[in-house]
Amino acid sequence: MSLDRRKICVVITARPSYSRIKSALQAIKEHPKLELQLVVAGSALLDRYGNAADFIRNDGFEAVAKVYMVLEGENPTTMAKTTGLGLMELTNVFYNLQPDAVITIADRFETIATSIAAAYQNIPLVHIQGGEVTGSIDEKVRHANTKLADIHLVSNEDARERVIRLGEDPEMVINTGCPSIDLAKEIANDEALNFNPLEKYGGVGKNIRWQDGYLVVMQHPVTSEYEKARTHILETLHAVSDSGIPSFWFWPNVDAGSDGTSNGIRTFREQENPENIHFFKNIDPLDFLRLLKHSKMLIGNSSVGIRECSYLGVPAIDIGSRQQRRLKGENVTHTGYKREEILAKIKELNGNGRFSTSTIYGNGNSGKKIANILAKIELRSHKSIQY
Amino acid sequence: MSLDRRKICVVITARPSYSRIKSALQAIKEHPKLELQLVVAGSALLDRYGNAADFIRNDGFEAVAKVYMVLEGENPTTMAKTTGLGLMELTNVFYNLQPDAVITIADRFETIATSIAAAYQNIPLVHIQGGEVTGSIDEKVRHANTKLADIHLVSNEDARERVIRLGEDPEMVINTGCPSIDLAKEIANDEALNFNPLEKYGGVGKNIRWQDGYLVVMQHPVTSEYEKARTHILETLHAVSDSGIPSFWFWPNVDAGSDGTSNGIRTFREQENPENIHFFKNIDPLDFLRLLKHSKMLIGNSSVGIRECSYLGVPAIDIGSRQQRRLKGENVTHTGYKREEILAKIKELNGNGRFSTSTIYGNGNSGKKIANILAKIELRSHKSIQY
Amino acid sequence: MSLDRRKICVVITARPSYSRIKSALQAIKEHPKLELQLVVAGSALLDRYGNAADFIRNDGFEAVAKVYMVLEGENPTTMAKTTGLGLMELTNVFYNLQPDAVITIADRFETIATSIAAAYQNIPLVHIQGGEVTGSIDEKVRHANTKLADIHLVSNEDARERVIRLGEDPEMVINTGCPSIDLAKEIANDEALNFNPLEKYGGVGKNIRWQDGYLVVMQHPVTSEYEKARTHILETLHAVSDSGIPSFWFWPNVDAGSDGTSNGIRTFREQENPENIHFFKNIDPLDFLRLLKHSKMLIGNSSVGIRECSYLGVPAIDIGSRQQRRLKGENVTHTGYKREEILAKIKELNGNGRFSTSTIYGNGNSGKKIANILAKIELRSHKSIQY
Amino acid sequence: MSLDRRKICVVITARPSYSRIKSALQAIKEHPKLELQLVVAGSALLDRYGNAADFIRNDGFEAVAKVYMVLEGENPTTMAKTTGLGLMELTNVFYNLQPDAVITIADRFETIATSIAAAYQNIPLVHIQGGEVTGSIDEKVRHANTKLADIHLVSNEDARERVIRLGEDPEMVINTGCPSIDLAKEIANDEALNFNPLEKYGGVGKNIRWQDGYLVVMQHPVTSEYEKARTHILETLHAVSDSGIPSFWFWPNVDAGSDGTSNGIRTFREQENPENIHFFKNIDPLDFLRLLKHSKMLIGNSSVGIRECSYLGVPAIDIGSRQQRRLKGENVTHTGYKREEILAKIKELNGNGRFSTSTIYGNGNSGKKIANILAKIELRSHKSIQY
Repeated sequence: MSLDRRKICVVITARPSYSRIKSALQAIKEHPKLELQLVVAGSALLDRYGNAADFIRNDGFEAVAKVYMVLEGENPTTMAKTTGLGLMELTNVFYNLQPDAVITIADRFETIATSIAAAYQNIPLVHIQGGEVTGSIDEKVRHANTKLADIHLVSNEDARERVIRLGEDPEMVINTGCPSIDLAKEIANDEALNFNPLEKYGGVGKNIRWQDGYLVVMQHPVTSEYEKARTHILETLHAVSDSGIPSFWFWPNVDAGSDGTSNGIRTFREQENPENIHFFKNIDPLDFLRLLKHSKMLIGNSSVGIRECSYLGVPAIDIGSRQQRRLKGENVTHTGYKREEILAKIKELNGNGRFSTSTIYGNGNSGKKIANILAKIELRSHKSIQY
Repeated sequence: MSLDRRKICVVITARPSYSRIKSALQAIKEHPKLELQLVVAGSALLDRYGNAADFIRNDGFEAVAKVYMVLEGENPTTMAKTTGLGLMELTNVFYNLQPDAVITIADRFETIATSIAAAYQNIPLVHIQGGEVTGSIDEKVRHANTKLADIHLVSNEDARERVIRLGEDPEMVINTGCPSIDLAKEIANDEALNFNPLEKYGGVGKNIRWQDGYLVVMQHPVTSEYEKARTHILETLHAVSDSGIPSFWFWPNVDAGSDGTSNGIRTFREQENPENIHFFKNIDPLDFLRLLKHSKMLIGNSSVGIRECSYLGVPAIDIGSRQQRRLKGENVTHTGYKREEILAKIKELNGNGRFSTSTIYGNGNSGKKIANILAKIELRSHKSIQY
Repeated sequence: MSLDRRKICVVITARPSYSRIKSALQAIKEHPKLELQLVVAGSALLDRYGNAADFIRNDGFEAVAKVYMVLEGENPTTMAKTTGLGLMELTNVFYNLQPDAVITIADRFETIATSIAAAYQNIPLVHIQGGEVTGSIDEKVRHANTKLADIHLVSNEDARERVIRLGEDPEMVINTGCPSIDLAKEIANDEALNFNPLEKYGGVGKNIRWQDGYLVVMQHPVTSEYEKARTHILETLHAVSDSGIPSFWFWPNVDAGSDGTSNGIRTFREQENPENIHFFKNIDPLDFLRLLKHSKMLIGNSSVGIRECSYLGVPAIDIGSRQQRRLKGENVTHTGYKREEILAKIKELNGNGRFSTSTIYGNGNSGKKIANILAKIELRSHKSIQY
Repeated sequence: MSLDRRKICVVITARPSYSRIKSALQAIKEHPKLELQLVVAGSALLDRYGNAADFIRNDGFEAVAKVYMVLEGENPTTMAKTTGLGLMELTNVFYNLQPDAVITIADRFETIATSIAAAYQNIPLVHIQGGEVTGSIDEKVRHANTKLADIHLVSNEDARERVIRLGEDPEMVINTGCPSIDLAKEIANDEALNFNPLEKYGGVGKNIRWQDGYLVVMQHPVTSEYEKARTHILETLHAVSDSGIPSFWFWPNVDAGSDGTSNGIRTFREQENPENIHFFKNIDPLDFLRLLKHSKMLIGNSSVGIRECSYLGVPAIDIGSRQQRRLKGENVTHTGYKREEILAKIKELNGNGRFSTSTIYGNGNSGKKIANILAKIELRSHKSIQY
């Protein structure tokens, strides 16, 4: 290995983070001036949350370290302890790897462990996807990550301005767009779904007839209202079931309350045995985008509706508070948690067709932009607020 | 215990934090609507750092929990691990205590453990002394604490404005002044030193003749330049030694590099055996203020020079980058690390006498203000950035 | 509280441990010379493993501290980390509680955390149920617990002799019998089942007709062969299903591999939808014994078959290596993991009726014996091997 | 690297452990069928305890991982927490290294972290120096390590018999002698000290005239009596000082109470300024043996007096309970803690000259024996007690 290659350590702690960074991982790996040090940790190692580690390895990335760190309980107390445990372990990992920069992604609760482990060890910290606004604990974590980070690679202009208002040096705040859009671009021109989801991924539930159009559903528990998770998911389940439209439903990732959500799904399946819903735990991220691209619409509160769907022009029904205040394209329609509201929106959008492509979250080359910046930008680990 | 008393959990992790919160602890303890839950942790439990726990108990406060959490090594790696360990343990402590609000103090590296443990468990977090500006890792920690906190009780107007610019709700940002000024006020009218420091506290080094005027020195390692700690302290040691003025020198608290500092002090004592310096590890905080009040000046980089000394009108020579950009009164004179510079400032200030009292950090009733606010303010654990 | 009461700290980390200590908890709580400090931790706090904490509270015991400590993953790596985390946290708990003695129960992997936390802090350590022999990692943990403990309250003569052969002071090794037998004694004379399990506990699966006789099944994964867990459980599921006898099936507790087991159960239910099996997650321990008492037989590898069933005279089919080398009464029949073997044994025992009561694991007053010993025995935390 | 080389992971957590394993490390490194994975952790990384890591690197060994894990406080509580932290971290290290066997050394409190991390992950565990007997917490740790280990490489016949009595499979218990004797053998034939200790190592204290004969002193705190550590060390300091014989005094390693010991030494130096004692923190292990070899005698409670000195024929005054019940050669004389007793023994032995070489702890080829065994022995991670 050449001595002048910068070692860039990326920590992936959850399935959704992987999709948001994959094209950047590839670009870092291929860049002549960079060396990728990939750490896979947290729920990315766990079968219950779709074991992202398998997808990562299948995509040709090798982890230099793996770290189990998720405490059982899925409640606020175990979230905090998981973060503490991760902080201790990741500190050790960075100490032994000696990276030139560390990348922390977005705003899940455990991402602050990566941030602190790097910042306290004077390793330049790069934060991906800071500056956005939402309504839950993520809000605190995201902006705290910003205050710990030295370099901010944000995914839209709105976010760039907000990070600068937070007192960061404008030269260190760059809008690269979101790498998740790069993946969307890869499949944006596919004319039809090139696989049969039921055959390729199995899953559970009825053998739905999806060929004439289908919904995709992905609804995460909202951390700060975690006892309501079960109620919320049941409302959406009823709405989707009542619509009668064939639907692919994806299990949520780990979070306080995911048990409430999982419970709700399991109970509904057992009691209602819905005719039109098929459930998946996890599928290949690109296949997921293909499925989205050819769907009638996305329903739930995943950021995929705001990001990838805006680029793909797929209608998205955004439920509840989770994506509140995020920058949104015209493809997004907001609703509350009630089944009637949700069902009404489904009916309204059904048959409306696609929106035109929006590039508010990037135009599909974010991964390369990120790698190029990492190869050139001044790496420093100290800063002072701008005002 | 009455059911309508709010349980306020205060976590003290280091000796200096105790002085900055003591009058508020007293006011909380005495307030009819509040119940104090005091947690003593980190270096506050360690003899090497002056065992604040003993002073705390002697002042009549009882800890409901104690937590050992400091890893040996005093380097950036162990600072990060200490924080992770503290986060795990404090999470458990809060989970079992179920406080209505948690107070985290200032900006030492481990204070973010308190912040995360509270924020993730949806316990309203009160941050004392946010919004200030300095030049080291503290800068990152302090503003990250702000982004995790719900209520901000700042110590000056400059800080209040900065916290608001950081996007916090102005109604939740209140300038209470600094509780450390309350202690200064207690002894501000003493006419003379009412104890003999050598007799009362022992310490090591020569039996200096302090009665006709003396210096006080307190210089901490600057975390982010920790290998230079030894060099820095030696420069100051030479300057103070060369001044020939009787001096009381206080050991620094735990921080990455404090070993460099300690080493420097020990080596200097062994080799130079200075005639005019007497060393103390720790003394009662009020006695420390008395000593300051009647001194010729304070030398070093302690925030005491900026805060308590501004109220007491004691000249302070502020060395190096540690207090850079803090709000300062006219009593503070800045210098670099070189012995010549320091010695020149000592000579310049020697005999100049006192400054008049400044109230930029409060007028001596911050503790009561804090308690009153805690008894009345809306306690909430969710927020959204203001822009 | 009287000053001369010994504070006895009992740590319960799993559902099965609670049944094995419950009568002793009661006796300690009621003893005039003892004060109970109950700590509930680990999987005893988790819904997935039957939340023993609820049963404990309902039985009138109050936890002085609760500790989340189970890492997700259910594999050997997370078992070890869980133990490390538990060790750190329980150390803190004991440090703050200052008990006169700590009780650690049996041989689950995390029990050694309790042992080390007490032993290293020079707190006399009482080990319940040492000296037995089995075939898995439990074997290492159990005897290591013995070497860390000061006082050994064993549950049978065979165990007492083995602990003494391990070099322990014979005066500190006392056969108290197993407190789990005390519970069995409470319900041993019930003439019929006094509740309807389906109505009282719900559960999932078919509404079986149990009134004319039923099986009880409880099979845990065998830690050291954890990839085989799924295969093993499927064999037993087929055997029980093929028997056609109405059966109550209980989910296993947390262990490496329990996911394999859970997976097996879930898959079998989904695919085979067995007519004669009803599944429970957790029921009140006394109700469980009542259910056992009136069953045709117990099937699986739970130690309940060896202990409580020997006293109750209930036939037990013991599958595989988990209970290998344990002291067994005549009620126990051993088989391998194959469905044919298991089915053959079921047929063989069906209709054979009860065995007579065996007292090899005690005669039902172990809890009181334990409390009396704890009140009187010399408490010391140092020892030397006897040879 | 050849696929058929066994990966042997050795964890060194303290300076003394390194001397006890060094020749085995060399033999493992050179063995064609073995690959060394060296982990350096705990106090071996800390300057305060002589930073063994530097010596290790200078000897040509490269650490594949380093782990900070020592909590500050040096008391029973921090010992337990250090062990928990080490367990979590070492689990992760082993998980990522995937060794074929792990070696844990002797009986310091933190060695059980290595044992559990390996045993729970089903990695065959090799315990070096089990089966011995002493009087403190080490006693519990050592025998617990034995019960967790699969292969026992003991250092004398007495130990071999004891491990077998503890129920281990005799085929897995092998007397290899102690690798520390290999180092002693290397320098056993030196005719004179080939370096000047004062020039080569500096140290602090008077410039003693050692050329005509000198004492070596090394006294560790006895963990289980840690408040007495200061008293004990002061007694020995007075005895050595009163003897008037030039003496090299070595600082103790990390342990609960070492602060008491360090304090005692520092106070004594400050107040008494002894004419005949020079203090060292750490020297190269071979140089330490050379110093011993040519000394009049060793004083203290280090196991070096029992092991290396028996081979070298150097008289050893063994103070107090720490080495009680260890197998001892005729070179060892026991005394209590009182200065009069110690001084009397010093006078008695002074001028008596050497003892003849004893091989009770091996004849100097233990390292190679250990490597050869590790290359051939069946590696398994499950066992059952022999009775």
